Amino acid sequence: MSRKLVIKRGKKVGAAPGTLVHVGTGSAAETQLEVFDFDQTHLTEQRLRDPELCLPLLTSDTVSWINVDGTHQAPLIESLGKLLQLHPLVMEDIMNTDQRPKLEEYDGYLYIVLKMLQFDQKTREIRTEQLSLILGERLVISLQEQPGDVFDGVRERLRSGRRKRFLDADYLAYALIDAVVDHYFTLLENLGDEIELLEDELIKNPTPGTLAHIHHFKREMLLLRKAVWPLRELLSRLSRDETPLVSQETRLYLRDVYDHTIHVLDTIETLRDLLVSMLDLYLSSASNRMNEVMKTLTLIATIFMPLTFIAGVYGMNFEFMPELAWHWGYPGVLLFMTAVVCGLLLYFKRRHWF
Amino acid sequence: MSRKLVIKRGKKVGAAPGTLVHVGTGSAAETQLEVFDFDQTHLTEQRLRDPELCLPLLTSDTVSWINVDGTHQAPLIESLGKLLQLHPLVMEDIMNTDQRPKLEEYDGYLYIVLKMLQFDQKTREIRTEQLSLILGERLVISLQEQPGDVFDGVRERLRSGRRKRFLDADYLAYALIDAVVDHYFTLLENLGDEIELLEDELIKNPTPGTLAHIHHFKREMLLLRKAVWPLRELLSRLSRDETPLVSQETRLYLRDVYDHTIHVLDTIETLRDLLVSMLDLYLSSASNRMNEVMKTLTLIATIFMPLTFIAGVYGMNFEFMPELAWHWGYPGVLLFMTAVVCGLLLYFKRRHWF
Amino acid sequence: MSRKLVIKRGKKVGAAPGTLVHVGTGSAAETQLEVFDFDQTHLTEQRLRDPELCLPLLTSDTVSWINVDGTHQAPLIESLGKLLQLHPLVMEDIMNTDQRPKLEEYDGYLYIVLKMLQFDQKTREIRTEQLSLILGERLVISLQEQPGDVFDGVRERLRSGRRKRFLDADYLAYALIDAVVDHYFTLLENLGDEIELLEDELIKNPTPGTLAHIHHFKREMLLLRKAVWPLRELLSRLSRDETPLVSQETRLYLRDVYDHTIHVLDTIETLRDLLVSMLDLYLSSASNRMNEVMKTLTLIATIFMPLTFIAGVYGMNFEFMPELAWHWGYPGVLLFMTAVVCGLLLYFKRRHWF
Amino acid sequence: MSRKLVIKRGKKVGAAPGTLVHVGTGSAAETQLEVFDFDQTHLTEQRLRDPELCLPLLTSDTVSWINVDGTHQAPLIESLGKLLQLHPLVMEDIMNTDQRPKLEEYDGYLYIVLKMLQFDQKTREIRTEQLSLILGERLVISLQEQPGDVFDGVRERLRSGRRKRFLDADYLAYALIDAVVDHYFTLLENLGDEIELLEDELIKNPTPGTLAHIHHFKREMLLLRKAVWPLRELLSRLSRDETPLVSQETRLYLRDVYDHTIHVLDTIETLRDLLVSMLDLYLSSASNRMNEVMKTLTLIATIFMPLTFIAGVYGMNFEFMPELAWHWGYPGVLLFMTAVVCGLLLYFKRRHWF
Amino acid sequence: MSRKLVIKRGKKVGAAPGTLVHVGTGSAAETQLEVFDFDQTHLTEQRLRDPELCLPLLTSDTVSWINVDGTHQAPLIESLGKLLQLHPLVMEDIMNTDQRPKLEEYDGYLYIVLKMLQFDQKTREIRTEQLSLILGERLVISLQEQPGDVFDGVRERLRSGRRKRFLDADYLAYALIDAVVDHYFTLLENLGDEIELLEDELIKNPTPGTLAHIHHFKREMLLLRKAVWPLRELLSRLSRDETPLVSQETRLYLRDVYDHTIHVLDTIETLRDLLVSMLDLYLSSASNRMNEVMKTLTLIATIFMPLTFIAGVYGMNFEFMPELAWHWGYPGVLLFMTAVVCGLLLYFKRRHWF
Repeated sequence: MSRKLVIKRGKKVGAAPGTLVHVGTGSAAETQLEVFDFDQTHLTEQRLRDPELCLPLLTSDTVSWINVDGTHQAPLIESLGKLLQLHPLVMEDIMNTDQRPKLEEYDGYLYIVLKMLQFDQKTREIRTEQLSLILGERLVISLQEQPGDVFDGVRERLRSGRRKRFLDADYLAYALIDAVVDHYFTLLENLGDEIELLEDELIKNPTPGTLAHIHHFKREMLLLRKAVWPLRELLSRLSRDETPLVSQETRLYLRDVYDHTIHVLDTIETLRDLLVSMLDLYLSSASNRMNEVMKTLTLIATIFMPLTFIAGVYGMNFEFMPELAWHWGYPGVLLFMTAVVCGLLLYFKRRHWF
Repeated sequence: MSRKLVIKRGKKVGAAPGTLVHVGTGSAAETQLEVFDFDQTHLTEQRLRDPELCLPLLTSDTVSWINVDGTHQAPLIESLGKLLQLHPLVMEDIMNTDQRPKLEEYDGYLYIVLKMLQFDQKTREIRTEQLSLILGERLVISLQEQPGDVFDGVRERLRSGRRKRFLDADYLAYALIDAVVDHYFTLLENLGDEIELLEDELIKNPTPGTLAHIHHFKREMLLLRKAVWPLRELLSRLSRDETPLVSQETRLYLRDVYDHTIHVLDTIETLRDLLVSMLDLYLSSASNRMNEVMKTLTLIATIFMPLTFIAGVYGMNFEFMPELAWHWGYPGVLLFMTAVVCGLLLYFKRRHWF
Repeated sequence: MSRKLVIKRGKKVGAAPGTLVHVGTGSAAETQLEVFDFDQTHLTEQRLRDPELCLPLLTSDTVSWINVDGTHQAPLIESLGKLLQLHPLVMEDIMNTDQRPKLEEYDGYLYIVLKMLQFDQKTREIRTEQLSLILGERLVISLQEQPGDVFDGVRERLRSGRRKRFLDADYLAYALIDAVVDHYFTLLENLGDEIELLEDELIKNPTPGTLAHIHHFKREMLLLRKAVWPLRELLSRLSRDETPLVSQETRLYLRDVYDHTIHVLDTIETLRDLLVSMLDLYLSSASNRMNEVMKTLTLIATIFMPLTFIAGVYGMNFEFMPELAWHWGYPGVLLFMTAVVCGLLLYFKRRHWF
Repeated sequence: MSRKLVIKRGKKVGAAPGTLVHVGTGSAAETQLEVFDFDQTHLTEQRLRDPELCLPLLTSDTVSWINVDGTHQAPLIESLGKLLQLHPLVMEDIMNTDQRPKLEEYDGYLYIVLKMLQFDQKTREIRTEQLSLILGERLVISLQEQPGDVFDGVRERLRSGRRKRFLDADYLAYALIDAVVDHYFTLLENLGDEIELLEDELIKNPTPGTLAHIHHFKREMLLLRKAVWPLRELLSRLSRDETPLVSQETRLYLRDVYDHTIHVLDTIETLRDLLVSMLDLYLSSASNRMNEVMKTLTLIATIFMPLTFIAGVYGMNFEFMPELAWHWGYPGVLLFMTAVVCGLLLYFKRRHWF
Repeated sequence: MSRKLVIKRGKKVGAAPGTLVHVGTGSAAETQLEVFDFDQTHLTEQRLRDPELCLPLLTSDTVSWINVDGTHQAPLIESLGKLLQLHPLVMEDIMNTDQRPKLEEYDGYLYIVLKMLQFDQKTREIRTEQLSLILGERLVISLQEQPGDVFDGVRERLRSGRRKRFLDADYLAYALIDAVVDHYFTLLENLGDEIELLEDELIKNPTPGTLAHIHHFKREMLLLRKAVWPLRELLSRLSRDETPLVSQETRLYLRDVYDHTIHVLDTIETLRDLLVSMLDLYLSSASNRMNEVMKTLTLIATIFMPLTFIAGVYGMNFEFMPELAWHWGYPGVLLFMTAVVCGLLLYFKRRHWF
């Protein structure tokens, strides 16, 4: 469990708001800008190093999507921020990757923070990556912590001829959000599969490891809910608030993503309740097994203690013990012992002990 | 437990919104359109293969109910959608059977998603089927995953002369929703019966199986609540919102279904609380039984250990043990042992151990 | 536990709304109409069989209270409904006694559903009876499932001269509701007494039966809360909504009943929390008793096992065991055993085992 | 636990609203009226028996505070009520001391119900006393169940010259409420002290009595919360609602009391959560102690059972047991036994059993 | 656990509102006023004893920040209050350090109460210090209980040239609140680290001390939540309410602190849920270990009890026991015993006991 519950941002405390210090784990790869610039008829796709080169795109009539992989390079983010005249708080939030999902409205653009989630099959943990979106008029900027994302579907549709709807930048932003939320379902499927496997294991052959796994998934669920819950309000506001940057038609689509988010949250709650119920089941099964063990012990003790006592009596060395001299003494005692065992077994049978 | 907690929709992730890929289990039976077309005096009932044939009905003055069994055939749904000029998101939602119940308003029609629930007596599980309703002016379309539904009562009333009220399409939609919600009560009766049986079993003769059944029903309750809960808001909006498609008179009826839904949710909560209380009872009973077992063991051990020790003492082989030579030694020891047993029994009696 | 958690209404599912099928347990006694008709100076009290005979009362200037015992006779309810021009949904709800408490406003009258609750001292269960109230101008109709109610106080006041306030029908309706809610306090007193007795039993002498009783009362609390909870909203709306049928002065009284209902709900919650706390106490006490039992066992075993072992050693039959021939061997071993016992007792004393 | 969870009011059920029957425990002391009548310059303080004597005060320009100790004397309350023209429901509520805290607005006066709470050091229980306040223009009436209250500070300030602010009756009412709420803090301090003592006891030396005390305080917390919770809404309305009886300046002070109430409720919740956490700790500690006991038992049994068996083997009386005749047989067996013990101890050491 | 759950304010109860009695622990250091007075070009920094000396600052055009360490000196606070014409309730609240965080609006200034929190590494406890802020036009006063705070970053920025934004007093107040809230993250990091260490300990090597630590952190979480929760509403109102003292631009910054507070609360909830889950894990592990111990005991008893019994049988002293005289009797019995042991081991193997 190497991932931290609380991401360190100690070095930032006390600094002036707007100070650009990267909070989070940085990628070694060099930050690049992936730029899609298109209108109805043309599409230009390029990779740039210098944000300055984006300037002509911002003033043109075409729609631009600038995707930045790696938000840990302070100078690049800073020059990008100056170019676009972003508020200092926005630039601070982009670099500090320990943000809650949120929506903020500024003059001329919206700032949206999302969490991209990935299920790591090996460690069975959820990996979180922060995605910042800036939606302007005819401009969408997406900023990720690391290369690798869930936007390949969007790229494909842009490259193909079917990009008519994307001519509105708000629809492009919607498509990116939709891709992120849709990926939550994949994550939940993975988690659901793992939890159902665990449930089977729990019912058929529970081990102490089962318990640790239940705890592990409860922990992941806590983190998952923390990452998705604020999205609900974010999307509700986005599809309802009166901002000229989002058209009426796109609101319809955003309402759809909102429904998906509610669905995701419902499923998270259901899985959490199921995990709680599984823990109850584990505890009860453990108690049952204990009962079984105790019954076995009691059975054994109750049968052999009286027998050993009887044998002990006739092992005493008194000089005057008439039974010892009887010819049928030994078989008699053995018979008596058998009778005692039968009696006890009958007694236990009646009390449904086995 | 073959039913999945999270329905797979992996193949859809990343696709453009509105892409028609069926998500869910498909039926083998061929999709058919069951069409009721009627006015005050006439009723036509027919089964069609080709949605195109519905076209004349849509333009006529009569009211039409088109019922589609099997939403997994993408081409049919697509041609139906084009015919009715449905929004791409609606068509996507019809085919993706992992939807939350919801209500969406579009130009000229309402789109409603419901869940039909069936209690499977054999597996004791709840089977879920998605029902999509489209309510237009003089038109209701119902789309189900599989043949077999709860609408026979509605069909009967249409066929009989008593269809005056159905001349308003919104009342027809109400009647369908009402049939679905009414069936929830049947489901709850079945579940309630099973749970009361389980409660009897729990009080009279609990087994480890009882525990697994409690867990099973808690799980079903989680899924049931997830399916019914959103209905509450849906019906509240439907009976309150200002849409010209629903008349004031029908709102009165919808308020009634709303009350039923609240009642269903109340009952679900009550059953859940009861199951939790039953689990507590099970755990406490298990703890009681353990106590009984432990008392038995302790009783036996406490009585026979001292006795065996006494017998052991007189089984020692010391040359000088005066008691061994006494004539009344043996009966004396037996008497002493009896006294010890009586004393211990008295002691346990006083501490209410049996 | 013969009472059902979910009242069967299976036979009704799928029928047209407004179909009159009685849902609930019917009384054998014949349904009668008890009619009070009065103004400032006169009071007529009569028992009728035929609803038609009420007709003159409805058109007169006097105030009428018609009380119907037994709502299971469909024809009578139907003819009464036709006489008063009730909405089909109202008539359906009167006969279906598995309703949530609710308030519905129709043209010219209010329809109110309440639950009368009775504590059955023998079975320690709460018996529920549905009460439907119809409040018109100068008319109150109360419909109960069975004879026997809590309205004798109201009847007395009508018969005495103090009926001035009752000349407003809404005050009469209030008086009936108030009688029902006041009776909840009696019920809670009974339940509170039983639960406090149980608490005493739990602290002084808990048995497995105590546990079953805690579960029983938790169950009753679930049903009680389900019956009372909706009343809160009902009375809030009744004392707030703008309906000409309820005067400003009566609203003041209804607000008072509303306060009582909140008080009832508070008490239910408190009793539920207390029951949960009692269950915790029971479980902990059981765990304590188990600890006691285990300590006793361990004490006995720890003392007698070493002793028995020592005796066993000197019961061995080796030819060369010098101790056996010693003259003080036997008393020496006895002394050694006593020392061992003392040492162990001292050890246990130090660890506060007794 | 002599105090009842549900206060009996059975004798009142079914009576007409406004019937004056005292509900609660009555004090033996005779009811008296303590009257403070004052303006800027003069203060009259007197004790009266007859409410009629208050009449001149009500019409004068001075401010009056009438404090009544003992609300169980129906005739006195009735004559007071008639004098002040109180609504029948108010008079009923004054005498029925099982009220929730509430605020009611009538023509010309406000009616406020509060709970005065006292921690009884001997029984460790919270004693509840109902306080009714009537706030008119230039008049405050406070009605208590029993002599003895928390208003001595207010009396002192009235008698001293610092009564300028009290010339507004609403400020006087505020001062009384403030005294009641301030006393809650004293109560919470007492409870907090007791609970922290209990926590120390729990960690250092838990006994079954500890458990009963935790249950006892959970119970008191339930009753405390029930008494304080409604105050929150009451004060919120009092400091917000538009009533001419409360001035803007006094609202500021009431907002302050409101904040104190929220603080009290926060602390109650925190103490409740702490008690729950303490119960968990108790259960876990009990489970730990059980583990210790079981380990001791198992240790003893595992060591002495094999030894006793070995001794038993050489206690057998077979004629041909060569070991018995060996010269080193006896010391050899003793050595072997020592080896067994050492092996077992090593084994337990490795598994960290002690 | 020396810190009190409920801070004593007993000596204050019953006093007139506005009476200045210090509630809390006082510092021994003498109270001083640290004054920053600045405009765009100049900054004066001085330490004063006498509040009177601040008077010229209040009337000048410069912005002033007066920081008071030690709120327990009643005379100083009183003279400061008179100088600034503070409401008596404000002065009371400043001295009573047992306040909930709150925001109050008065004529010409805002009064804000916050909690500064510090994690004490030695005792692993959270130390609380009350911070009162008064925001006027061109004036911020901060009052702390003790010297030492989290404002060094703010002081640095004031002293450096970058104080342009601070020329609005509301931004200065924001900077102080931001420093306090940012420090919560450091606190949460410390707590998160401790809890993750505890989690590791719990999984690898749980001891009874682990349990006490879980309880300890649950307790700290209760206190932490109590201190932070009200901040949420406070900041929401501060960034939304219409007060001329806070500019539109600063509201943007306050919204950012509000988001941070929500984030802090989310993390507190997540840590609490994790602690609950850890307790469950501990209990289950304890139950598992108990099972292990019991299995060992039962195994030993089940194997050695029958063996000891057999040895006991051949230790009996009957004269006629033919087996005793057999030549192969002794080895035969040993062989039989070995067979019994093998049989039992096989039986346990099959039931997966080891």
